[in-house]
Amino acid sequence: MTIPNHPPSTLTSQQTRLLARQNTITNTAGYSPGTLQANLLILPQKHSTDFHNLCLRNPVSCPLLGISSTPGNPHRITPSPCIRTRDFDLRTDCPRYRVYKHGKCIADNKPDLLDVWPHPHPHPHPHPHPHHQQEEKEEEKYTAFLIGCSFSFESALHNSNLTPRHHLTSTIVAMYSTSIPLLPAGIFTNAHCIVSMRPYREEDIDRVREITRPYLATHGEPVDWGWDAVERLGIRDIEKPDFGHSQVFGVGEVPVFWACGVTPQMAIEAAGEKIDGLVFAHEPGHMLVTDWGVEDLERLKGGLGAFHQE
Amino acid sequence: MTIPNHPPSTLTSQQTRLLARQNTITNTAGYSPGTLQANLLILPQKHSTDFHNLCLRNPVSCPLLGISSTPGNPHRITPSPCIRTRDFDLRTDCPRYRVYKHGKCIADNKPDLLDVWPHPHPHPHPHPHPHHQQEEKEEEKYTAFLIGCSFSFESALHNSNLTPRHHLTSTIVAMYSTSIPLLPAGIFTNAHCIVSMRPYREEDIDRVREITRPYLATHGEPVDWGWDAVERLGIRDIEKPDFGHSQVFGVGEVPVFWACGVTPQMAIEAAGEKIDGLVFAHEPGHMLVTDWGVEDLERLKGGLGAFHQE
Repeated sequence: MTIPNHPPSTLTSQQTRLLARQNTITNTAGYSPGTLQANLLILPQKHSTDFHNLCLRNPVSCPLLGISSTPGNPHRITPSPCIRTRDFDLRTDCPRYRVYKHGKCIADNKPDLLDVWPHPHPHPHPHPHPHHQQEEKEEEKYTAFLIGCSFSFESALHNSNLTPRHHLTSTIVAMYSTSIPLLPAGIFTNAHCIVSMRPYREEDIDRVREITRPYLATHGEPVDWGWDAVERLGIRDIEKPDFGHSQVFGVGEVPVFWACGVTPQMAIEAAGEKIDGLVFAHEPGHMLVTDWGVEDLERLKGGLGAFHQE
Repeated sequence: MTIPNHPPSTLTSQQTRLLARQNTITNTAGYSPGTLQANLLILPQKHSTDFHNLCLRNPVSCPLLGISSTPGNPHRITPSPCIRTRDFDLRTDCPRYRVYKHGKCIADNKPDLLDVWPHPHPHPHPHPHPHHQQEEKEEEKYTAFLIGCSFSFESALHNSNLTPRHHLTSTIVAMYSTSIPLLPAGIFTNAHCIVSMRPYREEDIDRVREITRPYLATHGEPVDWGWDAVERLGIRDIEKPDFGHSQVFGVGEVPVFWACGVTPQMAIEAAGEKIDGLVFAHEPGHMLVTDWGVEDLERLKGGLGAFHQE
């Protein structure tokens, strides 16, 4: 399928995913606005229950948008409205990927995962090779988790004349480790919540909270704000973010902190040697664009179970 | 309806609720085992969205089991499997209640809420008085939230020969304020997670975690454990719990901490003057017994939305 050379803001989510598959795009910010973009975390099946529980216990930093329908099958996500197209492959449809082993990143900026997750599930190829199916049984079965990303609420802030600073300065949002514990689940213990920070004037905070509040499935309203919050969150130096770029504060501006989708990758690092097998993730900023729209946010509040009949 | 004088462990949930209505029982521990008991929080409708978001953002301390189907109607809970009986009244079917004003407890050990939430919704009375309906419009409409309680997983621990210490000593479980922030939602800011503590031997912790893990809808697995956890959680003195009774540690035992259903009441206290109108809650230990059973725990993980069609 050839994708016309249209501006990112006019592409459907499937068009963006196909561009990512062809590796003709990188950062997905601004692509297919109105759809929800996802952080990707793919683990060996044996760890999937623990990781699922981790997300359910920490929905502000790890809000679930979808899960592999069947372990080992990279083509289907449950609930089905998350990815509606039959032509879908978790291993190619993000622009860039990372690989973790024992909690350490061992490869980054990979264009696809076809070499590390080699055996395609028979579907969607109509005539699978018989010995491929045989071998597949001995392969590691991977389960993917799609986790909400803040790109969606950033558009909403922009549309309300509260454009995040890092958009205006073309930098990467500042991210910090905090003292807020990620509530443990199985092997996932001793991790902490990562927050992203956007400067706003004190008098705008109520509006900023209101605008991002409905986006529960993509981190929702801020977890804390104001200069006092820096100490409360255990951040040592606001000018030295742990990830991304330091942000400039204007007169009367204070830091506003949201939970951040980098948190699940930190949970993988904290679990370290307890993880048996490889873990795959998207490259930060290079997200998987889903078919969820902002119009699904209200129903997503009720949990993914609400969509299981669809 | 007369309830036979049977032992608590043989009563159905409706039989326990009717005994609570008649005020012939107090603490509901041990009643209707196998069903999930609930913490109760009833707020003016204008605050219900904020409180709902608070629960959704903090599901480990505030796991939702049900919500009023219609504001102002004390007879129906959504999703419907939570309370299956038509003969139900939120204002009477807990053994004892508390009343809060501006975040402060102004009355406790009340046998019912009929005086403070006076106008019964027309249903289940088949012929409502016309002027009652008229008046009702001027009344405060209350919305109830039913929040999971640890009684269910305590039975599971007991059944695995890991009976919680406070059961053996007939004391109230020790509860502590922690430094874990309750992630804010609307007017509910600056509150912290309350934890309950049960002593266990270090070598039993893996089993204790496993046994309580499936009980996600009633606080699930511990949030932290071990002597190091005391400082991590910001607990000043393990011998001086903020609520309940100090617990005795045996040789080789360490504290194990779970999120606690007292947390939502603390969120009400922290919101203080921001709450316009009265708030009602159950008296601690005097829970509302629901019709959810342990067999529903797995599906409750998917969120209440999973049951909305039923």
